[in-house]
Amino acid sequence: MALLVQKYGGTSVGTIERIEAVADRVHRHKQNGDDIVVVVSAMSGETNRLIELAKSIESAPSAREMDVLLSTGEQVTIALLSMALMKRGVDARSYTGSQVRITTDNAHGKARIQEIDTDAMRTDLDAGRVIVVAGFQGADQYGNITTLGRGGSDTTGVALAAALKADECQIYTDVDGVYTTDPRVVDSARRLEKITFEEMLEMASLGSKVLQIRAVEFAGKYQVPLRVLSSFVEGEGTLITTEGNKNMEQPAVSGIAFNRDEAKLTLKGVPDTPGIAARILGPISDANIEVDMIVQNVSADGTTDFTFTAHRNDFDKALAILEGIEGELGARGVLTDGKIAKVSIVGVGMRSHAGVASTMFRALAGESINIQLISTSEIKVSVIINEKYMELAVRALHSAFKLSDSAAGISEA
Amino acid sequence: MALLVQKYGGTSVGTIERIEAVADRVHRHKQNGDDIVVVVSAMSGETNRLIELAKSIESAPSAREMDVLLSTGEQVTIALLSMALMKRGVDARSYTGSQVRITTDNAHGKARIQEIDTDAMRTDLDAGRVIVVAGFQGADQYGNITTLGRGGSDTTGVALAAALKADECQIYTDVDGVYTTDPRVVDSARRLEKITFEEMLEMASLGSKVLQIRAVEFAGKYQVPLRVLSSFVEGEGTLITTEGNKNMEQPAVSGIAFNRDEAKLTLKGVPDTPGIAARILGPISDANIEVDMIVQNVSADGTTDFTFTAHRNDFDKALAILEGIEGELGARGVLTDGKIAKVSIVGVGMRSHAGVASTMFRALAGESINIQLISTSEIKVSVIINEKYMELAVRALHSAFKLSDSAAGISEA
Repeated sequence: MALLVQKYGGTSVGTIERIEAVADRVHRHKQNGDDIVVVVSAMSGETNRLIELAKSIESAPSAREMDVLLSTGEQVTIALLSMALMKRGVDARSYTGSQVRITTDNAHGKARIQEIDTDAMRTDLDAGRVIVVAGFQGADQYGNITTLGRGGSDTTGVALAAALKADECQIYTDVDGVYTTDPRVVDSARRLEKITFEEMLEMASLGSKVLQIRAVEFAGKYQVPLRVLSSFVEGEGTLITTEGNKNMEQPAVSGIAFNRDEAKLTLKGVPDTPGIAARILGPISDANIEVDMIVQNVSADGTTDFTFTAHRNDFDKALAILEGIEGELGARGVLTDGKIAKVSIVGVGMRSHAGVASTMFRALAGESINIQLISTSEIKVSVIINEKYMELAVRALHSAFKLSDSAAGISEA
Repeated sequence: MALLVQKYGGTSVGTIERIEAVADRVHRHKQNGDDIVVVVSAMSGETNRLIELAKSIESAPSAREMDVLLSTGEQVTIALLSMALMKRGVDARSYTGSQVRITTDNAHGKARIQEIDTDAMRTDLDAGRVIVVAGFQGADQYGNITTLGRGGSDTTGVALAAALKADECQIYTDVDGVYTTDPRVVDSARRLEKITFEEMLEMASLGSKVLQIRAVEFAGKYQVPLRVLSSFVEGEGTLITTEGNKNMEQPAVSGIAFNRDEAKLTLKGVPDTPGIAARILGPISDANIEVDMIVQNVSADGTTDFTFTAHRNDFDKALAILEGIEGELGARGVLTDGKIAKVSIVGVGMRSHAGVASTMFRALAGESINIQLISTSEIKVSVIINEKYMELAVRALHSAFKLSDSAAGISEA
């Protein structure tokens, strides 16, 4: 008997029929003797409908009230799914984030989970109940409703699995696993049977839409085995776990990630003095803007150009901040580019394979694609390029690293 | 400077434009120096949409989950109205029933308010904030979401006004006051400027759709001056208070109430022994079914017919209970009639006017309308008739008691 946390996204609960199908699946698992905690998103389209309502009143509505509004989306789903489970004779009980005591900080719209009180859930599980929890939401210490930001239902699922020490956290979605890259861009992209948390973290943070990065962070930190699988077709999906297969040599690159969610901002000619990075990024961070790549060129005339990328949603806010501090820092102006894409190769095998980066740069040069920024970590190399070459770059790299060849890619269990 | 609780129903917040209009009105009152607590319903149509979703899964969904589902309707409205107020520079803060600590019993779908903790609201009011509260909902002592039943937003408004000792509870609706009877049935129906709690209680309980009965009960019990007025046209509405005008003699009848919400159930030939009524109505009450009229005929052969009316929504449940106890009580069968209407005359003046009932019966006889049941109180006389004669009866009574004549009706202040 296993304790499973199953998370179903918006498409998986998008209609009454799909909610009934989820209830059927949960029912089957329950009959197999498993204990189940289900986490659900809002029915697809609902969150956008609510955002539209808010925007028709105010283009920049209060973040606190936005959370009050958006959290109703998941609340509708938990009630409907619980009804569908009870119709099947499954004793079920719904909980909002606030009711299940998911305590977060008070950063409305992008709150972080601080604590989960599992006592009530344990009581329900011991009584044989299926627990249906609203994803994406919690409450701060004063009881104000908070949301974890879009896609935060994955985080809720993993956080609950960690708090309950579940055997597996299953993320049901509209794709049947993690691929070497997006199959819509590369026809021959291949499903991976296993991937490490580190690789998945890079894939997720770099734009693979399958899982939210914070969910993978949580899962890795608390060693919660995470499985991505389809809620529409049966299959094993992709298991994300602490280690790859040790029997075969690790290939260099496991997958290609990409996104065009970011914008690039450069503060030109700032004095190259200690503390300058902190004086630039301090106000950015205070405004809750997450910075991705950061590049500072070598100093020439005692000044330097400071470049970073951030999500396009935060672009206006970030630009306003740079324009505000430009004068006091003695900078020579702000340059921006919103038409960029980031393309990355990811793989734990990189650690033991030389020449991976140069293979990457050669493949891009072969397509005459200019590289604007480069950033590396132990298991990935990312480049910023003009967004119009994004698909071309992904296909070139998928081919250069032989990811469609069944002998390559992550070795399969 | 007054403390006002203003309640806006579903039609008053039915669209974004109307929510903006409510925000304008609240803003004006706030500028006049009043402290405002606003209670809102779900946007019109929303509750029905949610009920449809639930019914498409299960015809008799769990009452607990139904409350989780339906409570989202008001939660959407409080967020949107708070945004609209903030856009106008009004510091506003929304609260769900659970957040504002409206503690109820656990009778899901028809919960009763037990306690309201006003500390947080006092803090907000002292800080100059407008408080926007979700009507119709609360939470039991364990934090389970409850609803007060349809129309319960009025009750929330009055209960908050009582708890906060507000100067007036204003119920904004789509009619501009309380009328001598429904103007859709009688053209010459007239708006009353004042009416007593007792009269309003009878009017509301008998089917005047303007206010929910529990709201009037609360208001009478805690002496909260209650005003019904239109959210679409300016006007004074109708003030419901402890006393009528003392300067003029009270007319006999203030208004005619009617409804066709009830069904009639008769248990035939039960033994006429002590305790029989309790043995019949005990199980009915245990099932949370509210009984309205109760009539027991004089005993003939040691047995009697026991008749009562209940809301049509509870008809199936009530019938099943009667069929369950019929045997053990030795009854001779169950008779039912779902096609009935109740028509009542109401007025505190009845106490000092003789012959009011006979005027009523004569008027109905004049239209050849047969009376099935009669029930009286100090300030009302109700009859059950065939529902197809309902409008005819109302018009005949409105005319018989000269209610369209401006010299009659409740005397005006």
